[in-house]
Amino acid sequence: MSAILTFPWPRLHGFCVGVFRRLDVPEEDARLAADVLSAADRRGIDSHGVARLRTYVDLLSAGRINPRPRLKVVRETESTATVDGDNGLGLVIGPRSNQIAMDKAARAGTGWVAVCNTNHFGIAGYYVLKALERDMIGWAMTNSSRGVAPLWGGERMLGTNPIAIGFPAGKQPPIVLDMATSAVAYGKVEMSMRKGQRIPLGWAIDRDGAPTTDPSAMLEGGALLPLGSDREHGGHKGYGLALAVDVLSAVLSGANWGPFAPPFAIRQSLPERSVGKGIGHFFGAMRVDAFRDPEEFKTQIDDLVRTLRATRPAPGTQGPLIPGDPERAAEQEREKTGIPLLPAVVEDLRQVSRQTGVPLE
Amino acid sequence: MSAILTFPWPRLHGFCVGVFRRLDVPEEDARLAADVLSAADRRGIDSHGVARLRTYVDLLSAGRINPRPRLKVVRETESTATVDGDNGLGLVIGPRSNQIAMDKAARAGTGWVAVCNTNHFGIAGYYVLKALERDMIGWAMTNSSRGVAPLWGGERMLGTNPIAIGFPAGKQPPIVLDMATSAVAYGKVEMSMRKGQRIPLGWAIDRDGAPTTDPSAMLEGGALLPLGSDREHGGHKGYGLALAVDVLSAVLSGANWGPFAPPFAIRQSLPERSVGKGIGHFFGAMRVDAFRDPEEFKTQIDDLVRTLRATRPAPGTQGPLIPGDPERAAEQEREKTGIPLLPAVVEDLRQVSRQTGVPLE
Repeated sequence: MSAILTFPWPRLHGFCVGVFRRLDVPEEDARLAADVLSAADRRGIDSHGVARLRTYVDLLSAGRINPRPRLKVVRETESTATVDGDNGLGLVIGPRSNQIAMDKAARAGTGWVAVCNTNHFGIAGYYVLKALERDMIGWAMTNSSRGVAPLWGGERMLGTNPIAIGFPAGKQPPIVLDMATSAVAYGKVEMSMRKGQRIPLGWAIDRDGAPTTDPSAMLEGGALLPLGSDREHGGHKGYGLALAVDVLSAVLSGANWGPFAPPFAIRQSLPERSVGKGIGHFFGAMRVDAFRDPEEFKTQIDDLVRTLRATRPAPGTQGPLIPGDPERAAEQEREKTGIPLLPAVVEDLRQVSRQTGVPLE
Repeated sequence: MSAILTFPWPRLHGFCVGVFRRLDVPEEDARLAADVLSAADRRGIDSHGVARLRTYVDLLSAGRINPRPRLKVVRETESTATVDGDNGLGLVIGPRSNQIAMDKAARAGTGWVAVCNTNHFGIAGYYVLKALERDMIGWAMTNSSRGVAPLWGGERMLGTNPIAIGFPAGKQPPIVLDMATSAVAYGKVEMSMRKGQRIPLGWAIDRDGAPTTDPSAMLEGGALLPLGSDREHGGHKGYGLALAVDVLSAVLSGANWGPFAPPFAIRQSLPERSVGKGIGHFFGAMRVDAFRDPEEFKTQIDDLVRTLRATRPAPGTQGPLIPGDPERAAEQEREKTGIPLLPAVVEDLRQVSRQTGVPLE
């Protein structure tokens, strides 16, 4: 196995901008899309950064994603909007729709935007960080193609449907929750398979719907389990959350829901039935000062964060983290050392470079 | 052990109204409070119905809850309000604040209300059912006194902090999610203890912060674990959700957060520090037609519900349920057969009857 290569994030960002430009994405949109991918790489969420560039390129090249979408607000009230993303990049439609949510919040106290006819939007955490910049509480969700079984189901029916929420702090770092509603990410099962390791019970079922510790049994026709895993440990709760994300993102907006969300992959076949347009996102922004004096709020968040950090640690641990800590640590580290990329990812990027004529190094 | 007694719910409802009236709660408020308690008993959530009446009575009698609160909106925008509940019954302040959220939504598309200076509000599901009656998507959350350890924490720092969300359907029953963010309810650990049974790993830790299967080790100074239980199965996610509920309900409103939320019990000592007023709730209402034609939305929800019910069942199961199914089944059953009460609960109610002079039977 060849060595891990590292790249300063601005170089990868520039590469992404160049590639998107070459695929007819307008300059401003290309920068936005690169921002979202970079945020994932910088924050240590490797599966959602440039590792995915190849798939965006494939889908754009094949005409499956529209490089020049005309985002349309198809319905709105003072605090809401429904957006049709014209089959654009989720990396562009996502940030623009999130912007609408924040602008609504600036006027009405809160803003909530459901989006259809869009595609994979990167990390949900990116969107709530934008809200934090404006002293707002941010929410972001998306549905995705099926990979997760409902509790007591024997097949994939829902996506890993993530939820992100961010709360601004004062002197402490903000609280940034960004979580899939499945027990574990698909990528972790793939990783165990590559390493030849078993997976823990509670992560997945096989193609017959039975619990499995064999990663290939999940990958080949099995399914991930929802957060909580089984009935005894609250698997109905993770399933319920995944379903709520599906409804808010897809049913409310007019996108494809449940097992009919189209895959983010060029080679996977499309679902048997179309029940809407593209996949769906859901964004929310809440002005803190719509509820409470922001300085008071932040002082209390600081106190809460310090209180949680002072929790007596469980044996063998350093004590609780604050949601967002691991991503912040990765960001600090990678700002200095660059983004480490697996050889397979570098090879993908080199191929994209050859295909588009945009130099990588 | 004496037999389970059953009571028609209207009789228990009438008893609750009489008891609250005798404790100086105004007629209309007494009815509202009885409505919320009855909803729990009718829907099979025994721990949150008349089984709790005794505690409400104790706290009202001791002057710890204000029977005649003057609810005050202390801040508002078009889509938000912050309510000070004047230390009233959560069973009264909750429904009135939820009403404000729905009225805001009627005008601005959505309405979001954070509430401080309030007390235990019954089942979160009650509030979203009220939103469904108005063709709205309903949200309800509350914080509660500490019982749950953050992931990697060795002590209780957060409440079981429930989240409820409800989505209206057309011909199918609505989707009603009502879940604690802990792996399991406190009551289930108590029940195992009474039955002399072990509890599954992943439910709780003991007073040293170590995983335990002994219910008494949790009850005597241990803690519940968050949904997901351990790091490998996503315990950081359940912890993150519990924290988000705490911030939305308590920090945003000015209530006591985290380990400082006051207990719902007359005999438990108050937390060492006060950082706000009472506990906090958070309500949301979203008009479906603010996003999409309601008939279209409901047709799609019906289709989604049918699609999920058609999931291939996991071995040994009947296939997935829809969130709200168990509560609906209990409601149908209990409408016919009455509310079954444990002998200890009946004894509690008889004592309340003697204390207040309101006849039970």
